[in-house]
Amino acid sequence: MTATEATPERPGFHRLTLIGIGLIGSSIARGARARGLADEIVISTRRPETLERARELGLGDVYTLDPLEAVAGADCVIVSVPVGSSGAVAEMIGPGLAAGAIVSDVGSVKADVVAQMAPHLPDHVHFVPAHPVAGTEHSGPDAGFAELFDNKWCILTPPPGTDPEAVARLSAFWRALGSKVETMTPEHHDMVLAITSHIPHLIAYNIVGTAADLETVTESEVIKFSAGGFRDFTRIAASDPTMWRDVFLHNRPAVLEMLGRFIEDLFVLQRAVRFGDGETLFRQFTETRAIRRGILDIGQDTAAPDFGRTPKKG
Amino acid sequence: MTATEATPERPGFHRLTLIGIGLIGSSIARGARARGLADEIVISTRRPETLERARELGLGDVYTLDPLEAVAGADCVIVSVPVGSSGAVAEMIGPGLAAGAIVSDVGSVKADVVAQMAPHLPDHVHFVPAHPVAGTEHSGPDAGFAELFDNKWCILTPPPGTDPEAVARLSAFWRALGSKVETMTPEHHDMVLAITSHIPHLIAYNIVGTAADLETVTESEVIKFSAGGFRDFTRIAASDPTMWRDVFLHNRPAVLEMLGRFIEDLFVLQRAVRFGDGETLFRQFTETRAIRRGILDIGQDTAAPDFGRTPKKG
Repeated sequence: MTATEATPERPGFHRLTLIGIGLIGSSIARGARARGLADEIVISTRRPETLERARELGLGDVYTLDPLEAVAGADCVIVSVPVGSSGAVAEMIGPGLAAGAIVSDVGSVKADVVAQMAPHLPDHVHFVPAHPVAGTEHSGPDAGFAELFDNKWCILTPPPGTDPEAVARLSAFWRALGSKVETMTPEHHDMVLAITSHIPHLIAYNIVGTAADLETVTESEVIKFSAGGFRDFTRIAASDPTMWRDVFLHNRPAVLEMLGRFIEDLFVLQRAVRFGDGETLFRQFTETRAIRRGILDIGQDTAAPDFGRTPKKG
Repeated sequence: MTATEATPERPGFHRLTLIGIGLIGSSIARGARARGLADEIVISTRRPETLERARELGLGDVYTLDPLEAVAGADCVIVSVPVGSSGAVAEMIGPGLAAGAIVSDVGSVKADVVAQMAPHLPDHVHFVPAHPVAGTEHSGPDAGFAELFDNKWCILTPPPGTDPEAVARLSAFWRALGSKVETMTPEHHDMVLAITSHIPHLIAYNIVGTAADLETVTESEVIKFSAGGFRDFTRIAASDPTMWRDVFLHNRPAVLEMLGRFIEDLFVLQRAVRFGDGETLFRQFTETRAIRRGILDIGQDTAAPDFGRTPKKG
């Protein structure tokens, strides 16, 4: 299979280069390998030990610490690094990109990443930013798996004027990895993800920090009695700190906007608790159920109680 | 087996009366039945349709809408109702309680429940308040299962002067249901649960409400792209509204104290985002990992990535 032979029925690339091989990069590698979506997979990382681990895991065909060498001859390059490093990576690979190559990323922030990367990319490539909305709390090349993207959404944010054929090819690739694909502007993406992903992470990190700093309740008690709700937040708060620091540094306006809304609403609940306003609490606690039902209806979460963690045996 | 024959090796009761048969009550019924912890289970509910459903499910031996009739001859009575109803239930059952009976509850709040119930209980019973720290987002008699309490903590808060033998018998019962048991004061319980359970529920309800009210992001988008973290919160926010309204109305001081701390800490993160203070963000995001490890180390959560929701197949 060569690049020019790829079709919607047989999506894929001749030479797929992955810059960065953490949870997302290594899941792309595994998925592409398992589903025959690349003749050759080239892997490049910044740290030698990560590259060595990728080689041990057999995630690719070619391994190099030199990003410029890695992208040579690639018809698709996917950058999977913390979003704060996107610009630097684009600058390094820009001069080596082949004419007609698709360049993409997997960043959780889009407007800022586009602004970082676009200036360094030559006119003869197709820049199609992407964000697979999938992940786990684990990180690194060992954490990835081929099914990570199954039934999850991948959002593409192609700049105006992007070649529709390049968008179609990358869409077909993500669909073949198991994803559903949607297209929107980077700015809208950043608002959507601020509320569905960034603020949830921020408040999860925050409550775990609050719990750790209490004088009246010990850390050991917090850990023992975490099954009442807290433990769910600790999973999210175990996510990669570098990745998440970068998300908050690079999606500031949308995060501050959504955080402001969250805090405003929280004050309403705080006041209801203070003044014993049971009606407000009950109404709020009832209205939220519809969204949960919507998520289960479209299969974006398991309907098993407690995420299936406490299996019913009888 | 009769009450007097019960031993730590063979814990249980002759006649176990359950007032309320929702998620927790019906899990106690199923667990007690499965593990032979009661010769007879009497079930009483306020609503006829709930009692009828309990009968269809075969959760007990005797069914009655009259709580006074239900407690007659019981050597253990466990009240499993929203905490706001604890006082009214205690008032109704008080006159019918047998001498030497253990009276307990399962409320997520302890100081207020003790204050509600104690005045209505005769001196000839043993009042041993309890709180099994376990649950799912589902409610009602169909939601219960015998394994709900396995490896979870049950906290007892016996008032000073409670007969140690009564405490030991109830402890043995909860251990036989699968729980680990710890004793503390009601006031300390309420602080511990405020941070490990009540605030997590409040902020989960809150963010789902915030997401539902946005003008810039549609509810359909929130639902579709929820896999980035938000969906976890929707599970908790699907919990029983009446139960949770009552928790916040009856644990006000501890909830306001812990919520104040949470908001204070959140402002620190908000300021770090606003001023691009990556060091503060990174430090906070790193420190929270130790608590997650502690929870996994003592088996209070699954170590499977993403709670095991996205199974690795290859």
